[in-house]
Amino acid sequence: MSQVTAVLEELQRTTPLVHCMTNTVVPEVTANVLLAIGAAPAMIDLPEEAEIFAGIASALLVNVGNGSAEQHAGMRRAAPAAVAAGKPWVLDPVAVGALPVRTALARDLLADRPTAIRGNASEILGLAGTSSGGRGVDSTDEAEAALDTARQLAGDTGAIIAVSGPVDLVVSAGRVTRIDGGSAMMPLVIGTGCALGATVAACLGAARPAGLDEHDAVVAAHALFGMAGRIAGHEAVSPGSFRTAWIDALHGWKPGDIGQWTTITEA
Amino acid sequence: MSQVTAVLEELQRTTPLVHCMTNTVVPEVTANVLLAIGAAPAMIDLPEEAEIFAGIASALLVNVGNGSAEQHAGMRRAAPAAVAAGKPWVLDPVAVGALPVRTALARDLLADRPTAIRGNASEILGLAGTSSGGRGVDSTDEAEAALDTARQLAGDTGAIIAVSGPVDLVVSAGRVTRIDGGSAMMPLVIGTGCALGATVAACLGAARPAGLDEHDAVVAAHALFGMAGRIAGHEAVSPGSFRTAWIDALHGWKPGDIGQWTTITEA
Amino acid sequence: MSQVTAVLEELQRTTPLVHCMTNTVVPEVTANVLLAIGAAPAMIDLPEEAEIFAGIASALLVNVGNGSAEQHAGMRRAAPAAVAAGKPWVLDPVAVGALPVRTALARDLLADRPTAIRGNASEILGLAGTSSGGRGVDSTDEAEAALDTARQLAGDTGAIIAVSGPVDLVVSAGRVTRIDGGSAMMPLVIGTGCALGATVAACLGAARPAGLDEHDAVVAAHALFGMAGRIAGHEAVSPGSFRTAWIDALHGWKPGDIGQWTTITEA
Repeated sequence: MSQVTAVLEELQRTTPLVHCMTNTVVPEVTANVLLAIGAAPAMIDLPEEAEIFAGIASALLVNVGNGSAEQHAGMRRAAPAAVAAGKPWVLDPVAVGALPVRTALARDLLADRPTAIRGNASEILGLAGTSSGGRGVDSTDEAEAALDTARQLAGDTGAIIAVSGPVDLVVSAGRVTRIDGGSAMMPLVIGTGCALGATVAACLGAARPAGLDEHDAVVAAHALFGMAGRIAGHEAVSPGSFRTAWIDALHGWKPGDIGQWTTITEA
Repeated sequence: MSQVTAVLEELQRTTPLVHCMTNTVVPEVTANVLLAIGAAPAMIDLPEEAEIFAGIASALLVNVGNGSAEQHAGMRRAAPAAVAAGKPWVLDPVAVGALPVRTALARDLLADRPTAIRGNASEILGLAGTSSGGRGVDSTDEAEAALDTARQLAGDTGAIIAVSGPVDLVVSAGRVTRIDGGSAMMPLVIGTGCALGATVAACLGAARPAGLDEHDAVVAAHALFGMAGRIAGHEAVSPGSFRTAWIDALHGWKPGDIGQWTTITEA
Repeated sequence: MSQVTAVLEELQRTTPLVHCMTNTVVPEVTANVLLAIGAAPAMIDLPEEAEIFAGIASALLVNVGNGSAEQHAGMRRAAPAAVAAGKPWVLDPVAVGALPVRTALARDLLADRPTAIRGNASEILGLAGTSSGGRGVDSTDEAEAALDTARQLAGDTGAIIAVSGPVDLVVSAGRVTRIDGGSAMMPLVIGTGCALGATVAACLGAARPAGLDEHDAVVAAHALFGMAGRIAGHEAVSPGSFRTAWIDALHGWKPGDIGQWTTITEA
């Protein structure tokens, strides 16, 4: 828990600039979440600009949900540029497995060795080729069902694998962490998963320059979301109100709140 | 009213997956509305993926408001794919009549026989060629002014025609239904019309597999919106608060609420 | 102050239609802001349609934040079309200076003599070539640091230059106006700057047909935002709640509110 708090304090202290290449549905909520948690968002998709900006930003998010061919070309240039500049980058394999263009894109991008991969169980299984994916962005698999695949994918790619569900899993070589938090209302608000991917990028962008552990950084992002979801679920029972309360909770937290509202377990 | 309730209960029971190809302004609010009412959204625009997904989803929405040439190409592949798979699809002719590219697109898509067409009066007149359309997305015509055109369009295309206004019209061969509900605040929140088109798709996606009447399904979508708008208008007097209350009201309804807050009249 | 009120009353009386060509992050919030203040938004990016619509709308906004090559081509056709039709247009040079494609685009568009240019200090300096721009959309310079550059840019282009910051500057030939209002919460909500650019376009679209002064129109947009930010900051201490209160405040103002919540100073 103290490592999680250290990452989140570093995040608030340094305002990491997160280069987001994300799908057409969630740019606004992603930007609002990054601002709420203390990061700075920039959405830049044009190939020429994306390649440049990936070297400037603190971290890069590549979310392969609904995007254009032009954006995909930009992703293929930005990911290696981030790596070349020593910046962490996160792959969010939205609906991978179910749809061919993004599945090929996401698998190609594994060659650029993402720092972290965050998805629901269906997406992690779909990326690894273990399953044909869910119904688009729905997860039809429980997080635990993807544990063995996540371990394998972590070994094959060197990435930290995060599997979202009622209890989230964060898996890397020799380590499995479970984060229990959130709310049943979260899947009723679009972008809670995609914004978590961006938050993982923000936490990695804060952790790397400070020399903090990157598995801990991925856990910190999930703990922050687990806390905010639980606080918002305590305050609101409908998705419109929940969304407002959730953004508020992502902003106003204090170090003690993480431990009060979430449970983090090392396996 | 009991048919309307039957459609909405089927919607909540089956969580239809709605493939949305929509304009750049409303993907987030459309997705949040679909989640609130109990459906599952997926925005997929790339031509190759859209053609595949239209056959997987429960229903397809094609909203021709602000989109790219690439998305338009995807719409031309997705609509026939939905038809081939026996899935209902909805055409939302945003600003058709006023602007040439989308007008040609929408009229071409009529050949794929949409299950329903939903727009404001100016758009329905613009689609039929009766009017040059409104000021972009504004309606400059009352719903009733489009009644004869809607009847003609229903006859020519086989589609159920829905005309949005203070009182909504749903028109199909031999049947006209009026739904009175909503709030004067609704036109002050962007996407209330576009999200209604997606809700029509969701109701059709629930109704068809259950063998429920599809005219009733279109009415059910409008009744749900009429109810939520009226409840939210009762709670909020400004558009920011109204938007939150409206999403909440779309989620938390009970069967009796529809009849309490809307009036449905068969002509 | 009476000129500011005159512009805002004209805005509410005439509902100017604002053609927005804006980035992928902010279309929804921009549209909701325009609706809240009493204008009508239309986002139209396809080159063929954009060129036509720029001549129909009351005013055009060109925001060069994250956009596609296709949209950029549309901007190059729409700006001269607006000028040819005698319509005001606003350039918002998001992250110009830092990124090459948009920087070249924005500088090329100066040849079409924008009526107003609105950005933060880094963007105004970046557009003028005085600075390499901020960290993407962040401003790393105070508004006052851009005053001399704004004066020079106003002289060179004939545009009214607005520089956003804790105190906003509006600069044109021989005139500098400062508007003090807003809230420290505004930079934590995405799109508050971009929506201000759209509001400048709306105020110009109301002012020009009425023969009202266009510098006053740009001031009016900033005063309206200054007022709403301050009211919302008085009501909310977290960014989710603030966003809702801010949209509400943009809608429900009365003429006396502007003077109560903002200070406008002529230098």
